[in-house]
Amino acid sequence: MRTLSEYAALVNARLEEIPAVVEEGRYAIGELPWLLSRSMRYSLCAGGKRLRPSMLLAAVELLGGRTEDALDFACAVEMIHTYSLIHDDLPGMDDDTLRRGRPTNHVVFGEGQAILAGDGLLNCAFETMLACAAKKPDRAADWLLAMREIATGAGVTGMIAGQVMDLYCEKEAATDKKALRFIQHGKTACMFIYPLRAAARLTGAGEDDLNALTAYGRAFGLLFQATDDLLDVTGDAGDVGKTLGKDAESGKLTCVSAYGLEGTRRIVDELHAEAVRAMERYGERGAFFRALVDSMVNRTK
Amino acid sequence: MRTLSEYAALVNARLEEIPAVVEEGRYAIGELPWLLSRSMRYSLCAGGKRLRPSMLLAAVELLGGRTEDALDFACAVEMIHTYSLIHDDLPGMDDDTLRRGRPTNHVVFGEGQAILAGDGLLNCAFETMLACAAKKPDRAADWLLAMREIATGAGVTGMIAGQVMDLYCEKEAATDKKALRFIQHGKTACMFIYPLRAAARLTGAGEDDLNALTAYGRAFGLLFQATDDLLDVTGDAGDVGKTLGKDAESGKLTCVSAYGLEGTRRIVDELHAEAVRAMERYGERGAFFRALVDSMVNRTK
Repeated sequence: MRTLSEYAALVNARLEEIPAVVEEGRYAIGELPWLLSRSMRYSLCAGGKRLRPSMLLAAVELLGGRTEDALDFACAVEMIHTYSLIHDDLPGMDDDTLRRGRPTNHVVFGEGQAILAGDGLLNCAFETMLACAAKKPDRAADWLLAMREIATGAGVTGMIAGQVMDLYCEKEAATDKKALRFIQHGKTACMFIYPLRAAARLTGAGEDDLNALTAYGRAFGLLFQATDDLLDVTGDAGDVGKTLGKDAESGKLTCVSAYGLEGTRRIVDELHAEAVRAMERYGERGAFFRALVDSMVNRTK
Repeated sequence: MRTLSEYAALVNARLEEIPAVVEEGRYAIGELPWLLSRSMRYSLCAGGKRLRPSMLLAAVELLGGRTEDALDFACAVEMIHTYSLIHDDLPGMDDDTLRRGRPTNHVVFGEGQAILAGDGLLNCAFETMLACAAKKPDRAADWLLAMREIATGAGVTGMIAGQVMDLYCEKEAATDKKALRFIQHGKTACMFIYPLRAAARLTGAGEDDLNALTAYGRAFGLLFQATDDLLDVTGDAGDVGKTLGKDAESGKLTCVSAYGLEGTRRIVDELHAEAVRAMERYGERGAFFRALVDSMVNRTK
């Protein structure tokens, strides 16, 4: 197993091989316009930690697969994550002007182009997975299952469902805990759960592995969000450009607004234990995933 | 072969079986929020002619396939077409308040929700094709190829490329004919060409069929756009809610602005001949496709 930054380096290297986000496109039929590649690349290569694709790759290795076979799927996951951030930042959504210390996509490229850059990244995620699958048609059934996991996680009962409810609850100033769990499961946990499930599909793993990774992905995703909510309030946020306490001020539904500081700390401990339990079956081989949940909790200490 | 409205009825019936766009979703984890299904359905079932999915189904029958096997792919094509309209109408893009005589999606549901309804439809198109493919894994290789055609047509060198250049050229008030062809090929022709190519993949057809359908799709798509541009000026537009002559006034790049009325009529005749030639190899069996190009030209007479 490698470290998080080693997996991230693999992802970054592969992203540099995907023409759609690298080439300054040209202007002939069937080619990519330069403005599209430039705007997609601006957000895709903005210094993200590559957490989701790295976890997919680590799970592939954990299950005895080869990272090379999964790299395009890992890149697709990062494209989907990035498109969701671009659209989330738009004036019609969260209306954010800064992300990771840089102006958001629509501030630089204009609102229309930012919408298209997001659309482009989502579509390109599928183009990338399908191009990878076309290279090895003998494993078509595995590719289909893996793609379906990712589409489900990103989709209308997954990430998009969470975003819809988030937008709705903010408008309605909803405060109930059921809504909170729905939003955080959809918006945050699904893009951990389903890429991990895709790793299981890519390696042809069985139900037990699928269940263990699902449980881990769920606990990790909710933990990730809960610690984020804590950091937003305690003012220890690592992300440059994040307005401290912004969510608390805006009346946005968070773990802290729903459960208070102490309640959220309890939830963090429970989710940590849940994630650790889910990976117990892998013993020492699950060290990467154990270290990851530990680091999530430690950043709030 | 059936008629256009018979194919459209098949598509409409199948759309009513896809839970994501029909059910008033609920509010439990892993389910679709009602607001998302309502907003997606609002635009998806707004009385479109179902031209693109019908042509896909007709091509499948032409090549000896069964429409039942292709229906989910046809629905996916219509979802992609619909998402592109929702995003195109947004204030950051064309800022249209009416489509097909009804308020546009963002006017009814708000800008943020309209962005998410579009994202949802694009993702749901892939979810729908992948769910279909999962039901018959023995044909996985064909499904992958068909999906790849659709992803390419909708993608960063296809439809989205055309939209990016359209937005850019409008801002720059570009007038050159190369830009016009690029935009109309991407925005309009690609979502005819690639669904037809997908039909060839779904039936396992060979290169000759693939080439014939590609040529027809290209000529038909450009013809569709050229006659639309003509109708916008001659004031004979069939689409309710379309502001007559709007494009000419807004300085948008169209066939008429680039080639004049007479020049555009010549282009229409050339494209008609090209489309007819492409289908010659099918003789009488290509009657559906022949009738379709005839009707395009006739609406400008």
